[in-house]
Amino acid sequence: MTEQYVVGVDFGTLSGRALVVAVADGRELGSAVHPYRHGVITDALPTAPDRPLPPDWALQVPADYVDVLRHAVPEAVRASGIDPSQVIGIATDFTACTMVPTLADGTPLCELPELADRPHAYVKLWKHHAAQDQADRITTLARDRGEAWLARYGGLISSEWEFAKALQVLEEDAELYAAMDCWVEAADWIVWQLSDVHVRNACSAGYKGMLQDGAYPGDDFTAALDPRFVDFVNAKLRQPIGQLGHRAGSLTARAAQWTGLPTGIAVAVGNVDAHVTAPAAQAVDAGQMVMIMGTSACHVMSASVLRDVPGMCGAVDGGIVAGSWGYEAGQSGVGDIFGWFVEHGVPGRVRDEAEARGIDVHEHLTQLAARQPVGAHGLVALDWHSGNRSVLVDHELTGLVLGQTLATRPEDVYRALIEATAFGTRTILTAFEEAGVPVDDLVIAGGLSKNHLLMQIYSDVTRMPLSVIGSEQGPALGSALHAAVAAGAYADIRAAAKAMGSVRRAVVQPDERRSRVYDRLFKEYTTLHDHFGRGGNDVMHRLRGLRREALTEGSP
Amino acid sequence: MTEQYVVGVDFGTLSGRALVVAVADGRELGSAVHPYRHGVITDALPTAPDRPLPPDWALQVPADYVDVLRHAVPEAVRASGIDPSQVIGIATDFTACTMVPTLADGTPLCELPELADRPHAYVKLWKHHAAQDQADRITTLARDRGEAWLARYGGLISSEWEFAKALQVLEEDAELYAAMDCWVEAADWIVWQLSDVHVRNACSAGYKGMLQDGAYPGDDFTAALDPRFVDFVNAKLRQPIGQLGHRAGSLTARAAQWTGLPTGIAVAVGNVDAHVTAPAAQAVDAGQMVMIMGTSACHVMSASVLRDVPGMCGAVDGGIVAGSWGYEAGQSGVGDIFGWFVEHGVPGRVRDEAEARGIDVHEHLTQLAARQPVGAHGLVALDWHSGNRSVLVDHELTGLVLGQTLATRPEDVYRALIEATAFGTRTILTAFEEAGVPVDDLVIAGGLSKNHLLMQIYSDVTRMPLSVIGSEQGPALGSALHAAVAAGAYADIRAAAKAMGSVRRAVVQPDERRSRVYDRLFKEYTTLHDHFGRGGNDVMHRLRGLRREALTEGSP
Repeated sequence: MTEQYVVGVDFGTLSGRALVVAVADGRELGSAVHPYRHGVITDALPTAPDRPLPPDWALQVPADYVDVLRHAVPEAVRASGIDPSQVIGIATDFTACTMVPTLADGTPLCELPELADRPHAYVKLWKHHAAQDQADRITTLARDRGEAWLARYGGLISSEWEFAKALQVLEEDAELYAAMDCWVEAADWIVWQLSDVHVRNACSAGYKGMLQDGAYPGDDFTAALDPRFVDFVNAKLRQPIGQLGHRAGSLTARAAQWTGLPTGIAVAVGNVDAHVTAPAAQAVDAGQMVMIMGTSACHVMSASVLRDVPGMCGAVDGGIVAGSWGYEAGQSGVGDIFGWFVEHGVPGRVRDEAEARGIDVHEHLTQLAARQPVGAHGLVALDWHSGNRSVLVDHELTGLVLGQTLATRPEDVYRALIEATAFGTRTILTAFEEAGVPVDDLVIAGGLSKNHLLMQIYSDVTRMPLSVIGSEQGPALGSALHAAVAAGAYADIRAAAKAMGSVRRAVVQPDERRSRVYDRLFKEYTTLHDHFGRGGNDVMHRLRGLRREALTEGSP
Repeated sequence: MTEQYVVGVDFGTLSGRALVVAVADGRELGSAVHPYRHGVITDALPTAPDRPLPPDWALQVPADYVDVLRHAVPEAVRASGIDPSQVIGIATDFTACTMVPTLADGTPLCELPELADRPHAYVKLWKHHAAQDQADRITTLARDRGEAWLARYGGLISSEWEFAKALQVLEEDAELYAAMDCWVEAADWIVWQLSDVHVRNACSAGYKGMLQDGAYPGDDFTAALDPRFVDFVNAKLRQPIGQLGHRAGSLTARAAQWTGLPTGIAVAVGNVDAHVTAPAAQAVDAGQMVMIMGTSACHVMSASVLRDVPGMCGAVDGGIVAGSWGYEAGQSGVGDIFGWFVEHGVPGRVRDEAEARGIDVHEHLTQLAARQPVGAHGLVALDWHSGNRSVLVDHELTGLVLGQTLATRPEDVYRALIEATAFGTRTILTAFEEAGVPVDDLVIAGGLSKNHLLMQIYSDVTRMPLSVIGSEQGPALGSALHAAVAAGAYADIRAAAKAMGSVRRAVVQPDERRSRVYDRLFKEYTTLHDHFGRGGNDVMHRLRGLRREALTEGSP
């Protein structure tokens, strides 16, 4: 039999990556990356460079996503050396919640000349954080009305999600809201472009669209937020739900021309970058948590039970693998905190030392920090430089470093920051365990798995062995695996994961002596975490408020 | 009449400075600095380089002080171009509490060959912090016994002071303690070398020796600390007390040979560097506070009333000017915190920018930070990188920076650290005011008075105009002024201060709008200050303890 292939496309924050994979065993044969021409728009629209966007906005341009299909896919196929006619399916994963406002035929509103200078006509990227007010009102209303679904989101609705972002559009540009026929996850919009079928994937509809037990929040709920919001669900989210790994439709002639792939092959239902990684790491059973660790961290895990876990991002039926409850939690800053510190807090001397040794600054600091006994730096930090997603769900929280003396050195702070993110992870694991959803297995994916000190610290802090995903392209491999299922090559995701996924088991082991010292430091972390994060002292909120005031009104 | 001159010699932590001054008007005619050959000994004795000293030790060699008399004084006279025969007096000021163990004739024990390898035979510099255990026991005992003098020291006895350091000698080297006839402040030992007269100055005897209302703590008190300590006061501190500005004696032939000054001229009673600065800045009246701001800060002020001010370093009758109560408070880290940050927390890019602009890094950061409206950085810090002297008197406290985000830049932290030290000053002023000892006037001395942003922040935070001492050599000028009084050229220190001291009044004015924002930030500082400094969360102590454990026992 001729060998069969699938293509997975991973749409990230700044670029898209296509990967060609063998259906039989998951071998990765070729890949290509295409950056988004407009990147992330935070300052001003390309069509109105003189009108600055307000703080916390983050927009994108949908045509940039299509360019990934047109460039990265054919390049990956070329690089793989395969015959494109042997490709049987394509699947995609996307950042989420990333929302495209469109006409009924899928045309993005920003592509209409008369709306091209309206900020709300553009894609609201996941990290568009300007709908906090709307999110707060959604949470409060849900709490006041005793909505059962609130507990499925850890008790707090994020400003990143579909309803908050849509309500912001309505309240700030009602005319544009009226012109919008569909409010589409980019994960589903790209599938629509590939197959001409508009289906909402179960993952983002559940985690970001608050679809629970087959229903969205009701009309009476949306009307209570704003009378004009009454028909939001029926008007803008009316499409059917597709299960992960199902076939959404077939590749259209137009998309075949973009990609160079055969017309009519399977196009899978859309998916989300973190969630699609779990089967790529063979973590599809209850209690197997995958942590995708890059600039931020996302924790996804399947479980057979439904429990309320405070502060997680969501629990969704079939949210990772059809037939299981999928749980998601997150840390809003991890690698970006280390990057920020190296960029803005490390003296030239350290850079020079690293250069003289022919290694990068992260590796040099890591090696210096690795020599220290646990606790020797005398520091404890809070890893909230980008706010806190789980378990506090509070984007206004900020970072803290405590314990500096004149003897404190950059490698001390670097280590304390790594430890703080590990304590953040332990806080999440503890929340799951206390809620009755045990975490048995930790699999690390993402670039940070290469940092040996970080891996050891995470293992020591959590007292768990760490496994590492076998692929360097976890999300794209995960998408390819979904394409294989959608094309009928495997019966389900579990079977595909077994054949095509890969993981190196327990590559790092915890050390009991270090773990005991970390228990003491974690106790300090938790005390500070609860004091500053749960109302003991709301100084971080007040300082953020003062900062906004000062930047708006102030002069030196 | 022939013009008359005096010489003031300021003994600092690393060097001594001699200054030749005109008696009539305080004109500074010449100066010279001589560094101590052995500097500060923290690692090992020069006689036993292979035996490391324990942590927190800081020793000096008395012969280094004599070298200042032999080199800096004649050089200063040469530089001034005066005829040395016209010098009518010499006076000195010293770091304190800096203690020399000697024989009855003043010979330092470390100069005896049989004791030269015993660490306790050397000078214990002010920042020798290894007698914390002894200090804690002194405080506890005084509190338990209801000793009236305890309140004069803000309720806490420092590990830097005479009794704690002596008790450490006794407990760690009883034989050496027995061989020690006198326990001498370096401030008095240097006067002894100049005049052959051993007199204890009222300033350090009061602030560091706990002499109050004419008496030291009693034999029953010292016996309760350790039975062998019973006769400490009578055996080792039995010399008479000399008032500041009085004549201790006359320059001996030997000292005349060292200095090149005339035999028989007046030698003033010893004094302490911070305290001697007050009259040099014409701050001799009640309510005039002088802040000497360098690596650390010292606050000295005369007052007509005696009140218990919590957390100050001491209130001493005649401790600054005979006839007034002299108050002292301090901040253990100021300039050294900024220096540490610039050395270890500022990226090469900022250094390069400063270099390109031809200014130093401090000035560059200052200029960047000066552009910000108050509160725009979103940060608040605790300035405890060297512990906290006033008002918490706790060397185990450590630094904290709260509010960092990925948008935080080095100039933000730099400004927050300056602000934290200003809040520390305001905390001290508030303690004085609440105790009924009002501060009417703030005069800044020391190198940091040159930082325009720092001066403005201190003025805005305290809502007080700031004056600046006229001389760049405040302590040496202050000593010279005392020499003039000791020589009989002026009736008293007040008269000499008026003629020889100098100050530029109210050179910085507070801005009410900025002050109002600082009120809000100061409130945040105070909440954190009390939480971490007064037992709300003793995490800083626990982390210090863990650090010591880790460094003693730990391996990575």
